[in-house]
Amino acid sequence: MIKKYSFSKIIKSYAVVKNIKENKILPYFTQNGLSFTYTMDNSTRVYGLGEATRGINKRGGIFRSYCYDEPFHTEDKKSLYGAHNFLIIDSKDSKERFGVFFDTPSGVTFDIGFSDSSTIKIELDYDGFDIYIINADKLLDIVKEFRELIGKSYVPPYWAFGFGQSRWGYFNKDSIEKVLSSHEKAEIPLDMIYLDIDYMDSFKDFTIDNTRFPDFSNFVSYMKDKGIHLIPIIDAAVKVENEYQVYEEGKKDGYFCKDENGDDYIVGVWPGKSVLPDFLNEKAAKFFGNKYKILTDMGIDGFWNDMNEPAIFYSDKGLKKAFKDIKAFENKTIDTTSFFDLRDTFARISNAQDDYNSFYHNIDGKKIVHNRVHNLYGCAMTISAAEALEKLRPKNRTLLFSRASCIGMHRYSGLWTGDNHSWWSHILLSIQQMPALNMCGFLYAGSDIGGFNADCSRDLLLRWLSFAIFTPLMRNHSAYGTRNQECYAFGETKDFKNIIDLRYRLIPYLYSEFMKAVLNNDMLFKPLCFEYENDETAKQVEDQLLVGDSIMIAPIYKQNANGRYIYLPENMLMMTVKNGEIFEQSMEKGHHYINIQLNEVVFFVRNNKMLPLFNPAKNTKSIDKNHFTLYGNADTYEMYVDNGETKEISSQNIIILKTNK
Amino acid sequence: MIKKYSFSKIIKSYAVVKNIKENKILPYFTQNGLSFTYTMDNSTRVYGLGEATRGINKRGGIFRSYCYDEPFHTEDKKSLYGAHNFLIIDSKDSKERFGVFFDTPSGVTFDIGFSDSSTIKIELDYDGFDIYIINADKLLDIVKEFRELIGKSYVPPYWAFGFGQSRWGYFNKDSIEKVLSSHEKAEIPLDMIYLDIDYMDSFKDFTIDNTRFPDFSNFVSYMKDKGIHLIPIIDAAVKVENEYQVYEEGKKDGYFCKDENGDDYIVGVWPGKSVLPDFLNEKAAKFFGNKYKILTDMGIDGFWNDMNEPAIFYSDKGLKKAFKDIKAFENKTIDTTSFFDLRDTFARISNAQDDYNSFYHNIDGKKIVHNRVHNLYGCAMTISAAEALEKLRPKNRTLLFSRASCIGMHRYSGLWTGDNHSWWSHILLSIQQMPALNMCGFLYAGSDIGGFNADCSRDLLLRWLSFAIFTPLMRNHSAYGTRNQECYAFGETKDFKNIIDLRYRLIPYLYSEFMKAVLNNDMLFKPLCFEYENDETAKQVEDQLLVGDSIMIAPIYKQNANGRYIYLPENMLMMTVKNGEIFEQSMEKGHHYINIQLNEVVFFVRNNKMLPLFNPAKNTKSIDKNHFTLYGNADTYEMYVDNGETKEISSQNIIILKTNK
Repeated sequence: MIKKYSFSKIIKSYAVVKNIKENKILPYFTQNGLSFTYTMDNSTRVYGLGEATRGINKRGGIFRSYCYDEPFHTEDKKSLYGAHNFLIIDSKDSKERFGVFFDTPSGVTFDIGFSDSSTIKIELDYDGFDIYIINADKLLDIVKEFRELIGKSYVPPYWAFGFGQSRWGYFNKDSIEKVLSSHEKAEIPLDMIYLDIDYMDSFKDFTIDNTRFPDFSNFVSYMKDKGIHLIPIIDAAVKVENEYQVYEEGKKDGYFCKDENGDDYIVGVWPGKSVLPDFLNEKAAKFFGNKYKILTDMGIDGFWNDMNEPAIFYSDKGLKKAFKDIKAFENKTIDTTSFFDLRDTFARISNAQDDYNSFYHNIDGKKIVHNRVHNLYGCAMTISAAEALEKLRPKNRTLLFSRASCIGMHRYSGLWTGDNHSWWSHILLSIQQMPALNMCGFLYAGSDIGGFNADCSRDLLLRWLSFAIFTPLMRNHSAYGTRNQECYAFGETKDFKNIIDLRYRLIPYLYSEFMKAVLNNDMLFKPLCFEYENDETAKQVEDQLLVGDSIMIAPIYKQNANGRYIYLPENMLMMTVKNGEIFEQSMEKGHHYINIQLNEVVFFVRNNKMLPLFNPAKNTKSIDKNHFTLYGNADTYEMYVDNGETKEISSQNIIILKTNK
Repeated sequence: MIKKYSFSKIIKSYAVVKNIKENKILPYFTQNGLSFTYTMDNSTRVYGLGEATRGINKRGGIFRSYCYDEPFHTEDKKSLYGAHNFLIIDSKDSKERFGVFFDTPSGVTFDIGFSDSSTIKIELDYDGFDIYIINADKLLDIVKEFRELIGKSYVPPYWAFGFGQSRWGYFNKDSIEKVLSSHEKAEIPLDMIYLDIDYMDSFKDFTIDNTRFPDFSNFVSYMKDKGIHLIPIIDAAVKVENEYQVYEEGKKDGYFCKDENGDDYIVGVWPGKSVLPDFLNEKAAKFFGNKYKILTDMGIDGFWNDMNEPAIFYSDKGLKKAFKDIKAFENKTIDTTSFFDLRDTFARISNAQDDYNSFYHNIDGKKIVHNRVHNLYGCAMTISAAEALEKLRPKNRTLLFSRASCIGMHRYSGLWTGDNHSWWSHILLSIQQMPALNMCGFLYAGSDIGGFNADCSRDLLLRWLSFAIFTPLMRNHSAYGTRNQECYAFGETKDFKNIIDLRYRLIPYLYSEFMKAVLNNDMLFKPLCFEYENDETAKQVEDQLLVGDSIMIAPIYKQNANGRYIYLPENMLMMTVKNGEIFEQSMEKGHHYINIQLNEVVFFVRNNKMLPLFNPAKNTKSIDKNHFTLYGNADTYEMYVDNGETKEISSQNIIILKTNK
């Protein structure tokens, strides 16, 4: 049951699709102005917050929903790229269990027992929001009710479940072709190659650098013939440049965010001097969305939207102030305090609160300061793209995912978890983010495999892949200047091939479970305790997940580990995949230590469930959906099958696979 | 057996105390100029590197021995504060097992299978070094032989095994007294309160701010009467200020590091404009060391040396260049690349290679560029203090530990692991650093409990303490501007008292094991596989340690965890300490999942070993060494007992404790 409590909500968000009657007295929480407190007991566990850092149980952390271009995902970071204000609070002792969603376009701080061990304190930046309280007996049912409130999740094309290779630094056609040929040579399956900002002419959205990527349309279709989708990046900001059509048009029609005086607010991002499209202005959103046509006309069928928190390296305003500040130091004696001040003068103008408070949106004719609606920006950009693509590609689905997000965007797009690091701890972070993202409707999601920043090593990539073969978005991505981390960069490519082969053997299952999760507002990734609710030990497990209805995974995320502890909440079938061979072993409920070598993947098939595995394939197109082996001790598997392209999805697409046993 | 291979060594380091005959052909490694490679097999495991990041097994990482003021101890950081060039390479398959020590005053890079999974590549910055190869049958024996080579470890006073409270930000006498009274009120034992840079007059070494700390000598003795030792910080750099005696004297005698032209090299550190004492110049070292007398005369009996990598926020030279660089931007159009350049202009002059290449030492009359001997600097500072203190306090030991270090300093001082963060992962880092530090002779060591940077939470502090009660240096320390993290800052102080009470019950054992480790060149902290060499599972354990001869610990380092997996390589006695009560339980060899609540400490007594536990005490002085209970299934425990102050240490101080069983 969902109840709504309205606190002078004025600005629409994109989150809710269902009309809920308003209620009066908010339960569970004590309100004090914009601050809401809940008293936890010793048993209280807290789930949710989507992309946030730290563990599956969010207790003991402090988080801030405020979309932010944060390149260091350490455990003390309060904000990453998404603003996902949904929590489940589960107090076994006091028998209070409920979901709560704060529907606001602005920032929110969630102190989940960090400042005071037994207090949840939630503070909203601005008045004007709705709170939804969701009650159900089971944790998963709370999620399902919430997901019904916010609407069905985005569905990508089938091929988007393939493996994608990306890197900031594929500077020309040749480097892209080399990625393909190297995968072909190593017989590593591949469906997508991503184009980072390198493909554009001077980082201008919807342009192609014709010198480095000549004859782009032909190149797109040439690659598609080879089974490869090229997926370009689109950045939020638009370069200020005369005769650059996107800029000229938007400028003429007043579609960019304005300063106090109504002039375009000038920021510096990749293209240098840029303006920020006002995606919250309906017409501006339409204008920008329609520009994707330039690329779909060239055969492009997938995009990733980036820098849409919005990331601002600097603004004209900030830069002027910084230069002025620096000047003041020139004739002063520098001491330590002034040196630190000096040192940070330019750094602190990046993604500055001062900028977010200095430009304005035109929302239905009203001038609204950005900070007030900050968390909607990336979401609105991606919706503008999705709504245009809906019309531009009326028949087929488009791959779309975004860095910034808020709830609501999940109906239009997936997301990736942003600029992580080549850190072992970021495999675990990624494992822990997946179920929380699923709770908020983001099913098509994944992390940059191998880590975006810092240098990756062979073993890190192998272990990361061994987890990421289970995530819908499976992309190896890295930053310019870091060590090359394509699967063929580390020698003995067979180990990589074997792991990614397994991905392709799993794809029909993963796709099927994904589609059923969309249809049923279910989670694809579940913490163990969402399924085994009364198992106190399962509640403690922060590094194993259920993937769909049949699989449990227990990835390795520690260097030099040849094995790990796992907890089986029931008897399961252990599947060890090595050199393409599958070894089955029945395992008893309880604790185990299992060995998993670097070139092995181990996962589990649940009791009374079936897992269909297919033959390896070089890309999604060549997966033979008619030949499979069923593993597990049930009789049937309910398989969702469709053409993977068209937009109708229906539970009528479920067929029954039967075992021969 | 130790063999020495000399590569034109010219500059003395402080590491080796034993004369080893030179050998000719270096085994195991292939040499190519200053680069040495070793080919690993699949079984190869690598231990050592002291303070370095990452796990107990260093395989798969890349490390650089180059003392560095690094505030973010993430796993990709190659350098922390210490330069500890000792490794054990253990290849079971190829039956090669040896220790190797690179004795050089300059930087070394250790690529332990990071770039190439099967290759160790070690590259020295400069020619002129010795390599020692140590062979022995057992891992621990390799360590012992190495430790014999480098000489016996530093011995602190007994009271230095007590609990210490520290914070950057105890600005005056009152705040120090409040620390004491708050501990007294909560009945939390305490032996030391640390004075960070706040106590000095304008950050000038060997001065006291008489306004904020009036009548300091009396305050020191007043606190000592209350059982509290005040432990001031000493920074490496000396403020440039006329009439500041330390500066004037050193200036007159030419004791500071010089630029190319022979003028004092001016750097900016906490006091602002400063100079760097030339600790590598024998006379300058003596001059600086003798200044500690100013404080010992006031009753001070312990010091921590800081900023001695040396940390350089900026130099005169760097600052001038940065201002010039900034000027060049003023009339340019800023684009993204130039903005990043601009942003980093001042940040990159901190701890800059350019500075380390621009000032010079006077070593035995020779002018040597700092970079050539960089790793000796902090070590030399601390030796200068230790050698002076040896004479200044002829009877009693002095507490001394340092941030920067290299091997050799272990004979004079302890160390702490520097400016970590209030991150759960840093409990684990600290666990993993301890045995590697012990290998290099650093026995008196510990991490900043609760984390120096970032905000600590109650549960983090409790879990960190539950590990740190086993480390010789046990200090809660935090940075200015972070959340207060004294044990009394989080409410329900009883939980903190109970854990620290256990520390005091353990101190006679810890001290005894520490002293025996000093006498026998043993490790106080051992990875399991150093004791259970043929146990393949023990090799995998990266988060349990043996503490002395009788104890195994398995700390919790994950938030919200109510338990953890442990591996027992033999039958052991599980000790659960809760609310001051001890519960014993026999446990069988093998894997277990054990519950450990936030207010419990669990540890294990090994088979055929005994652990004496004493009564709680409010400080080390009041520990009653005559009343104890012996736990475990042996008959006796060999207890090292002395007065804890005087300098003679001897195996004749070992007495036999007998059980009544």
